[in-house]
Amino acid sequence: GRAYAIASIPGDGIGVDVTREARKVLDRAADRHGFALRWTEFDWSCERYTRTGSMMPEDGIDRLAEFDGILLGAVGFPGVPDHVSLWGLLIPVRRAFAQYVNLRPVRLLPGTTSALAGRTVDELEMVIVRENSEGEYSEIGGRHNTGQPSEFVLQTSVFTRVGVERIIRYAFELARTRAGRVCSATKSNGLIHSMPYWDEIFTEIAAGYPDVHSEQMHVDALAARMVQRPDLLDVVVASNLFGDILSDLAAAVTGGLGMAPSGNINPPGEHPSMFEAVHGSAPDIAGKGIANPVAQILAGAMLLEHLGQLDAARAVHAAVEKVLAEGAVATPDLGGTATTAELGSAVADAV
Amino acid sequence: GRAYAIASIPGDGIGVDVTREARKVLDRAADRHGFALRWTEFDWSCERYTRTGSMMPEDGIDRLAEFDGILLGAVGFPGVPDHVSLWGLLIPVRRAFAQYVNLRPVRLLPGTTSALAGRTVDELEMVIVRENSEGEYSEIGGRHNTGQPSEFVLQTSVFTRVGVERIIRYAFELARTRAGRVCSATKSNGLIHSMPYWDEIFTEIAAGYPDVHSEQMHVDALAARMVQRPDLLDVVVASNLFGDILSDLAAAVTGGLGMAPSGNINPPGEHPSMFEAVHGSAPDIAGKGIANPVAQILAGAMLLEHLGQLDAARAVHAAVEKVLAEGAVATPDLGGTATTAELGSAVADAV
Ligand SMILES: CC(C)[C@H](C(=O)O)[C@@H](O)C(=O)O
Ligand SMILES: CC(C)[C@H](C(=O)O)[C@@H](O)C(=O)O
Repeated sequence: GRAYAIASIPGDGIGVDVTREARKVLDRAADRHGFALRWTEFDWSCERYTRTGSMMPEDGIDRLAEFDGILLGAVGFPGVPDHVSLWGLLIPVRRAFAQYVNLRPVRLLPGTTSALAGRTVDELEMVIVRENSEGEYSEIGGRHNTGQPSEFVLQTSVFTRVGVERIIRYAFELARTRAGRVCSATKSNGLIHSMPYWDEIFTEIAAGYPDVHSEQMHVDALAARMVQRPDLLDVVVASNLFGDILSDLAAAVTGGLGMAPSGNINPPGEHPSMFEAVHGSAPDIAGKGIANPVAQILAGAMLLEHLGQLDAARAVHAAVEKVLAEGAVATPDLGGTATTAELGSAVADAV
Repeated sequence: GRAYAIASIPGDGIGVDVTREARKVLDRAADRHGFALRWTEFDWSCERYTRTGSMMPEDGIDRLAEFDGILLGAVGFPGVPDHVSLWGLLIPVRRAFAQYVNLRPVRLLPGTTSALAGRTVDELEMVIVRENSEGEYSEIGGRHNTGQPSEFVLQTSVFTRVGVERIIRYAFELARTRAGRVCSATKSNGLIHSMPYWDEIFTEIAAGYPDVHSEQMHVDALAARMVQRPDLLDVVVASNLFGDILSDLAAAVTGGLGMAPSGNINPPGEHPSMFEAVHGSAPDIAGKGIANPVAQILAGAMLLEHLGQLDAARAVHAAVEKVLAEGAVATPDLGGTATTAELGSAVADAV
């Protein structure tokens, strides 16, 4: 069978705990489906930063470039400012490898209940397509009149034609393989330069997909809809910041952040793609064996799918669903008493 | 009794429908409590824009300046771009009168049910303190390389020391009159100039309020918390954009947008404050008599409170609660068949 070179970056906090379980499950799936995953683990993390002054080595990006895929745990730890840890690892990887799609499928899994009253499994199934390379997350800006009463800070968002077009096009293509509906998050009434531009390009591209139902909503109203009528949503396309907020929210209305995977995808496949749970490093529960590994296991399934190993990916999904539906092995957030490792092993055994 | 000069700007769509009912209720409350409201109505709206090319007259701000308070319906209508309608009326008023606090109390009312499973009235009671004068809503920015493949748009957020300090201080003062907890929305890991600055000022000010519990959360996690643990939230302080999103979301998890009032407040009282429902103009249901007037009636109660007519404000609240709890007169969004006017009259009669 084929062998894939996979980089694993467990990172910080529970990133380490859940990545261990995801590897366990993925190795089992590879075994069963006749291929191999050759793992290389990197200790890039806040711990490394504290020791060496940088989150990853100078040639970090070059070293990752040769891999077929990357599995990332989580980044961030108290004492290291977030803008250091994230901009020293997660965000440079996303950008260097033009992982311009952040794909966040959200689904109510069997055996879990939605935070929303009376919503069933088939009403909670959507995917957030988040722009992942530009927009509001920008290094342009700074502080002026420092220390004076007139002190102020500027922060500039950047929206390029190339960047906006490619993410919106991706969303429409994806919608064709699904329920055929795209909803775009805007805020053109408040952000009068960036969002009208986003909307203009959305309208242009939508015209090329007459078979797809397209809609634009202000992000505030869209957030409200996620809570009130999530059944109306299929593909949601959004800028970097809006996609970040909406995907956490979408995860919360379904099974919670413990269940939400995410892919940082370079669609042309010229560079490696990176998969991670939506949740963060949760330092307060790190190493305690109580973190829910499902999100990271499902991120692993997205990695398998990306590698073209569709049967193996499906097997991982089925195993997660089976274990959750049985309910005998569940971490505290799911109302059980199982450890991270017990849930990981149960899923691996079910593969 | 005393007489107050109040400007009414019904605006567009259902703004007209619900403002009519709010006036009905407020007049009744004034009557009962021995004061008078002298209304002056302005037809400033998208309809006016279509007719004359501007949302309000040149001296609009000057004309409003003399009033004791402003009741605004809603602004926005298809055919008039949002950035024209909003930046031609709502936003200039907020800024000209230094209404730097957008106060959005959110509460599950008796007789209504939360979109969230199993949440009770006392678990859903919070207030969003939204910065209302600067931040992400800025006119700075523009398009470059127009028509070229390299085309891009910049949009610059502005955070001033004065602006950030005053809103955060307001939140802490407010928390002292409530459960004593302030949660600040940040996104310092993505927005590396503006949000670390916001956080820095938050930390400075928090130090002066040792009696108030303070906390900072990334806006994505905070959105998730609103759905998963809303009972933990008391005062939420947020930038213009984050406050906009979080307040719609907070309204959605409680009774819905039909129930959420909002005040644009100039705390020193040097300029008039303006009160409005959180919801928009909903042109699709305008004039049909099915819009829920409760949000606008409650916005009216906030206006009475602002005028110092606390008993009258309480009476309006009590009347709304009574009518909702009885449930006999309810608009379609509340599961009933009553019209906007019937619900308005029922509340007026209960005052
Ligand atoms: C209409 C729009 C500009 C406005 C805003 O975002 O400020 C509205 O959504 C609100 O929340 O008052
Ligand atoms: C950690 C942070 C920078 C990151 C983001 O907002 O991109 C995270 O919240 C995510 O959603 O992947």
